[in-house]
Amino acid sequence: MMWEFVAAGAGLVSILFALYLYRQVTRRAGGTDRMLDVAKAIQDGASAYLRRQNVTLLAFLGIVAPVIGILVGVTQGAEHGVAIAVAYLLGAGCSTLAASLGMTAAVRANVRTANAAREGLTAAFPVAYYGGAVMGLAIVGLSLFGISLIYYLGRTALGWTEMDAAQVTLGFSFGASAFALFAKAGGGIYTKTADISADLVGKVELGIPEDDPRNPAVVADNVGDNVGDVAGMGADLVDSYIAAIVAAMILGAELGGGVFTLLPLMIATVGLVASIAGVFMVRFLMRGNPGAALNGGLFATSGLFLVLLFAVTYTAGLPGQEWLGVFLPTLAGLGAGIVIGMTTDYFTSIDRRPTLNTAEAATKGAAINIMTGFSYGLLSIVPSILGICIATFASWTLAEMFGVNPFYGIAVSAVGMLSIVATIISSDAFGPISDNARGIAEQGDLGPDALAVADALDAQGNTSKAVTKGFAIGAAALTVLAMFAAYTHLVDIDLAQGINLISYPVIIGLFLGAMMPPLFSALLILAVGRNAGRMVEEVRRQFREIPGLIEGKAKPDYKTCVDIATRGALRELLFPCSLAILVPVVVMLLLGKEALAGFLAGSILTGIIFALFMANAGGAWDNAKKYVETGAYGGKGSEAHKAAVTGDTVGDPFKDTAGPSLNTMITVMSLVAEVFAPVILLLWA
Amino acid sequence: MMWEFVAAGAGLVSILFALYLYRQVTRRAGGTDRMLDVAKAIQDGASAYLRRQNVTLLAFLGIVAPVIGILVGVTQGAEHGVAIAVAYLLGAGCSTLAASLGMTAAVRANVRTANAAREGLTAAFPVAYYGGAVMGLAIVGLSLFGISLIYYLGRTALGWTEMDAAQVTLGFSFGASAFALFAKAGGGIYTKTADISADLVGKVELGIPEDDPRNPAVVADNVGDNVGDVAGMGADLVDSYIAAIVAAMILGAELGGGVFTLLPLMIATVGLVASIAGVFMVRFLMRGNPGAALNGGLFATSGLFLVLLFAVTYTAGLPGQEWLGVFLPTLAGLGAGIVIGMTTDYFTSIDRRPTLNTAEAATKGAAINIMTGFSYGLLSIVPSILGICIATFASWTLAEMFGVNPFYGIAVSAVGMLSIVATIISSDAFGPISDNARGIAEQGDLGPDALAVADALDAQGNTSKAVTKGFAIGAAALTVLAMFAAYTHLVDIDLAQGINLISYPVIIGLFLGAMMPPLFSALLILAVGRNAGRMVEEVRRQFREIPGLIEGKAKPDYKTCVDIATRGALRELLFPCSLAILVPVVVMLLLGKEALAGFLAGSILTGIIFALFMANAGGAWDNAKKYVETGAYGGKGSEAHKAAVTGDTVGDPFKDTAGPSLNTMITVMSLVAEVFAPVILLLWA
Repeated sequence: MMWEFVAAGAGLVSILFALYLYRQVTRRAGGTDRMLDVAKAIQDGASAYLRRQNVTLLAFLGIVAPVIGILVGVTQGAEHGVAIAVAYLLGAGCSTLAASLGMTAAVRANVRTANAAREGLTAAFPVAYYGGAVMGLAIVGLSLFGISLIYYLGRTALGWTEMDAAQVTLGFSFGASAFALFAKAGGGIYTKTADISADLVGKVELGIPEDDPRNPAVVADNVGDNVGDVAGMGADLVDSYIAAIVAAMILGAELGGGVFTLLPLMIATVGLVASIAGVFMVRFLMRGNPGAALNGGLFATSGLFLVLLFAVTYTAGLPGQEWLGVFLPTLAGLGAGIVIGMTTDYFTSIDRRPTLNTAEAATKGAAINIMTGFSYGLLSIVPSILGICIATFASWTLAEMFGVNPFYGIAVSAVGMLSIVATIISSDAFGPISDNARGIAEQGDLGPDALAVADALDAQGNTSKAVTKGFAIGAAALTVLAMFAAYTHLVDIDLAQGINLISYPVIIGLFLGAMMPPLFSALLILAVGRNAGRMVEEVRRQFREIPGLIEGKAKPDYKTCVDIATRGALRELLFPCSLAILVPVVVMLLLGKEALAGFLAGSILTGIIFALFMANAGGAWDNAKKYVETGAYGGKGSEAHKAAVTGDTVGDPFKDTAGPSLNTMITVMSLVAEVFAPVILLLWA
Repeated sequence: MMWEFVAAGAGLVSILFALYLYRQVTRRAGGTDRMLDVAKAIQDGASAYLRRQNVTLLAFLGIVAPVIGILVGVTQGAEHGVAIAVAYLLGAGCSTLAASLGMTAAVRANVRTANAAREGLTAAFPVAYYGGAVMGLAIVGLSLFGISLIYYLGRTALGWTEMDAAQVTLGFSFGASAFALFAKAGGGIYTKTADISADLVGKVELGIPEDDPRNPAVVADNVGDNVGDVAGMGADLVDSYIAAIVAAMILGAELGGGVFTLLPLMIATVGLVASIAGVFMVRFLMRGNPGAALNGGLFATSGLFLVLLFAVTYTAGLPGQEWLGVFLPTLAGLGAGIVIGMTTDYFTSIDRRPTLNTAEAATKGAAINIMTGFSYGLLSIVPSILGICIATFASWTLAEMFGVNPFYGIAVSAVGMLSIVATIISSDAFGPISDNARGIAEQGDLGPDALAVADALDAQGNTSKAVTKGFAIGAAALTVLAMFAAYTHLVDIDLAQGINLISYPVIIGLFLGAMMPPLFSALLILAVGRNAGRMVEEVRRQFREIPGLIEGKAKPDYKTCVDIATRGALRELLFPCSLAILVPVVVMLLLGKEALAGFLAGSILTGIIFALFMANAGGAWDNAKKYVETGAYGGKGSEAHKAAVTGDTVGDPFKDTAGPSLNTMITVMSLVAEVFAPVILLLWA
């Protein structure tokens, strides 16, 4: 059975469905002139950002692709070098294309959602949801299509072995990760630059409401939601998705070949089919409650995935009970993903202890509020880490029990967790669209009823975003473990004999690797602070120099603010991103392949911990502020509110810049190790 | 040569010198009645705290000692069980005794320093310094005396092998760590409870100055400095000191025996001799500049230590050039300690970029100030981690080059770093004494000249404290690496074959271990927040209910505040401390000895990272506030100052509660693993 074709076909269907949804959303009415005006400004800002990001990315790819091609070419032959460099460019290209389509859909869905909000929740919800689904379906479809095609061409047109063909898909994965790193880190800096500046000058200094059209930073803020949350989060999840599939394929090729190499593609395919069905069903599950519809879609996807997964593993032709050694670990991965998502929800929900205590702490001042949210952020890592440990334990032992190699078990567990990712990205991208819709409704003066609908969608969007973040981190953890196993194989470390933890290269590698995520976080947060500093100056200047602006008689210069945020974000991300690529290479050159293994392990540990901590502390502060804004402890304008706003601002770069970039960063570092494995082998044979 | 006697003798000399200094300090005049009044309140508060802490510790020891005795007794024979339980109690007892003496000296030296400040800096400095040296000399002396005695008795009176005798000293180390954990975590909660409450109600709500006698929390605040910084820091450094010596002795007994077992004692002995000489010389190095005198003392100690170290290793009778394989790693350890201390100084110094940028960020509000300090705290881990990596690399390869086992090299490098610890503790304890002296001078109305002298001493004290914190963390890192090597030996893991990093028990162990330091930090910070909440209520109540208090006509009830801080701190520390002991046991029972090795490794990684980050972020915020208070950005009372105060308050539990407790916590977890090694062996042979 040509599973590559089936997988590529599923990818194509997903892309076509995305295009269909795009058409469905964009043919709707766009609302009043004022609304279209605002939406146009957001669209222009988003395009301007994406264009600049693509230029910067192109320059980056222009340096990295030849380096990969030459290094791999010298060690493995020219054909391999060219193939992996092309795959790298394709990976980055597919993600760029999908993100452009997704963003274009999102910045058109927002105004249409706001317009539909005048008719009520039932009319508005599908617009926002299917606007977001364009991103989810397009990026997952393109990715699955790309991997299948490259693997197929490698096997047939070039006549390579399974292992060689699987290794070339690493290039595709690396390209997708390069895009993800830019989108997450750059987008993260961009979105928080805009958000913080808009709040600091608008809300704090001048006391005008959020999303007020007089604020010169408000468009940049709305653009930022799309850049960071639509393009960024989609790219982040998909970069784990691709990496998990590729790592599992490499381990499959090594540990048995044949069906083992193709199984990851098969699992991903049925996951995508289930996701398409789930996304399709969401609109019929909507009975006045968007949360129920989203959960219904997720349950439908998971249920269908289970059935298809059973069918595909049971009939895959594995000897004896080995199919159970694939089926059960995949389930364990899926379960762990859901558990981690749910605990994230607990730690950041507006009606749970952590957030409520953080809100109460705000009555004792900003410092106690910050300490409390900080502590809950640290506590929140416990259930997720236990979840990762249980998933590791379960997939390892279940695979072994049924005669499947345990590393392969961990790899398929990561693939299992991520195969429903199209559904997850769709619910996630729903968040920024609703957020924008709320802004447009406010700026377009749509009245209290429409605003209430937009508020309801926005609140649901925040919950989805929190759950997705937890899911993304858990998925990254399992993916990177799978990649870690694939790396050790690629550099010819005997899996049974392994890597000695008590040797100085490994110990030093662990320390250096563990140092990277905090270092990367620090650089990104400092970048946000610097960039926001520049933009605050500009916003203050406009209020000072544009006559009539504060009275609402003149229009602010939105474009300059978008420009500052864009240029700063892209300039600031180059150094941290280069570190993510260069440091593993330096460790490999100076200390060897065992040290690099230790390095990757160290980076996984602190990467996961800092990502969870930052995402959840940020979420708790954000919702604590929202809780105070519902009227608790004196409500808006009270001392407690001011303290809570300070906490929320500290949390902004935690949860939307540094935290979510860490997943991608550790994936990139693992991919660097794997892509350069042939070079490592030559140097440290 | 009976090196045990020489070591015990050096310990005794140190104790006698401490008693002599105690007498020298206490015979000085105590100042005016008002000053003696204040000092009396601090003394009473400190005694009350110590008494309660000792009672709680006794209950804790009463549970843990029999458990150790029985478990070790069942597996290794009754004699061993009794011996190790007794050694455990002795270890805790020695630390308790030394800390009591040190605290008693410190709370008497403070008022005498304030009084001497009326005569000028040259008169005041030696009082503060030698008051602190009592703690340093007493605790190091008692520790070295205790280890030597136990080892000697084991070898002669009980006729044990070197390994058995060395293993019993583990009990002593564990006891000292139990005390350190209580003193650091309990003292840390205590001191920040008092500090935050005093500031929040006094400075922020009522606008009265720091150390104002009308503030009911002011005495508790002054007590806290002594509890956290004198007893806590001394116990923390000494617990690493003892653990490093014991780990090196165990490795020495395993890897060759004879002189290798005794060398760690020998190195520690010459280190103590050099420290005694260095401490003695400090007063003669004082020429108007306390910083120069302290540095001079440190250089004199280091120089003398080098000479003695050369003499002792060269003449130890090691075959061939093996003495170089001990001498050079010891030097590498000492060098790394100094480098880490200096980079800590850079990141927290009031005239360097990190602190200046953090201060500048305060002009943009509390949130940006906090983000900036947070980021610099994260950046600050980079040079220290590089220092630890270089020390590991150097001591490993230098030992190997000259035919000494590399694990032994790392162990002696930790011993080398810590052997001058008596000098380090002496400069550190100088800090809180000067801080208190400043408070007493303020409360005793000593006038601007005396206050200026006290301020100069206080500023120098802050620098010393920052350097010591970095040193303590670096020392803990190397110590725990040495203990890690000792653990793997004790549970019969072949050092050459090692522990396989890519196996599920080790991976899960790493994740769980890495989770512990953030979890522990979160619990401690939440404890400070809760406890400060209680105390703020009490302080507000007193201002409300005691007539004439705010006008300075009535005296506040200091004692109730001291009580609240004490009881809360001791209640709050039990859960986190129990976790530090129980979780390693659970990991060992459920997952085995390899998993426990992974657990220890994971805890070292994040333990060091969080300890460095918290200590340095806290230091940067603190000094950024002080910088604003010098008049920058509007000085005291400006918006920037308010923002900087918020940052400083967030940093308080970071740098004085959670951060410094982490060293001790990871040491305790390693000791649990080592002490229960015989049990582990029986279960997972």
